[in-house]
Amino acid sequence: METSINIPETKSKSNGKALAVGVQQPNRGVKKGIAIGDFILRLCAMAATMGAAITVGLADQSLPFFTQFLRFQAQYDDIPSLVFFMIANSIVTAYLVLSLPFSVICIVRPLATTPRLLLVIFDAAAAGLTIAAASASASIIYLAHNGNPNTNWLPFCQQYGDFCQAVSGSVVGSLIAGTLLLFILILSAFALKRS
Amino acid sequence: METSINIPETKSKSNGKALAVGVQQPNRGVKKGIAIGDFILRLCAMAATMGAAITVGLADQSLPFFTQFLRFQAQYDDIPSLVFFMIANSIVTAYLVLSLPFSVICIVRPLATTPRLLLVIFDAAAAGLTIAAASASASIIYLAHNGNPNTNWLPFCQQYGDFCQAVSGSVVGSLIAGTLLLFILILSAFALKRS
Repeated sequence: METSINIPETKSKSNGKALAVGVQQPNRGVKKGIAIGDFILRLCAMAATMGAAITVGLADQSLPFFTQFLRFQAQYDDIPSLVFFMIANSIVTAYLVLSLPFSVICIVRPLATTPRLLLVIFDAAAAGLTIAAASASASIIYLAHNGNPNTNWLPFCQQYGDFCQAVSGSVVGSLIAGTLLLFILILSAFALKRS
Repeated sequence: METSINIPETKSKSNGKALAVGVQQPNRGVKKGIAIGDFILRLCAMAATMGAAITVGLADQSLPFFTQFLRFQAQYDDIPSLVFFMIANSIVTAYLVLSLPFSVICIVRPLATTPRLLLVIFDAAAAGLTIAAASASASIIYLAHNGNPNTNWLPFCQQYGDFCQAVSGSVVGSLIAGTLLLFILILSAFALKRS
């Protein structure tokens, strides 16, 4: 830097530019790799949340017997947590679809920070929402499997096995999606890193 | 910057230094501010998770009547989700205490990326854990308040009002801590940002 100070104005100007880019250039390839990884993880997370939302939405089991007044049926809207689960996973799926173009921009321009920061902000919100929905449903479905004798809450998965299995699978998928989103956040931090 | 290029060598030297650091210098103050904000938010999150863990751990309500065989008592270990809640919040509190020195390093050296990246990785895990624990307990405590007639799970907060209130407060505190941790993650992304 100091060697180039004595060079006349025009050169020192372009030199300053060379330095400014020089700090970042060698990592362009690495950052591109990170951006591609981000895109792939985003697709995986999208598939997981979409699958979870659809599976829970369609999970529906009727028992083969019914009385005059009662039909024995289990559906996601019997349990408020599962309604939240489905809505949250749908929102996150929609967000992840909308985020894909920004992720592509980050691949094309690995050194751009604005789209990356935008993604970080919304990824954090999406990760929080996904994990919250998944673990809220996980605790309910745990209760459905095991019950809780201390509070007199009886399990119902003996009767509604298929329903419980579908929901359990979705919860696992959603938890994986939440973990992937946290991992995407960490990747973004590495992508934003100076030098 | 460009107006000062024409000034003679000695001056332009000190100027050149200003430029060399100048790529980063103007942001040093901003990044220091971000690091201080990170430290304060970290303290708040620590207070919240610690308070939540202690409150749930001490929440204990006995009803004023008992039979020969039964004592009516509510404690956190009657509900598996609350055990998880207490353990998770204790872990996150411990982590946040351990992370404070790193946060201080980030204040002293706002441009260092390694401690910041370390914090990002563990903050993401801590945020996930806190949100998972808080929302798992939130769904259970919602059930304790409102019950679920579809699954025959009856509420017990009429009887154990104090216990429920203590746990509800802790869950809110823990959710706030989780949100703060996500916010810390976003701040870290801004702190890591180039230029």
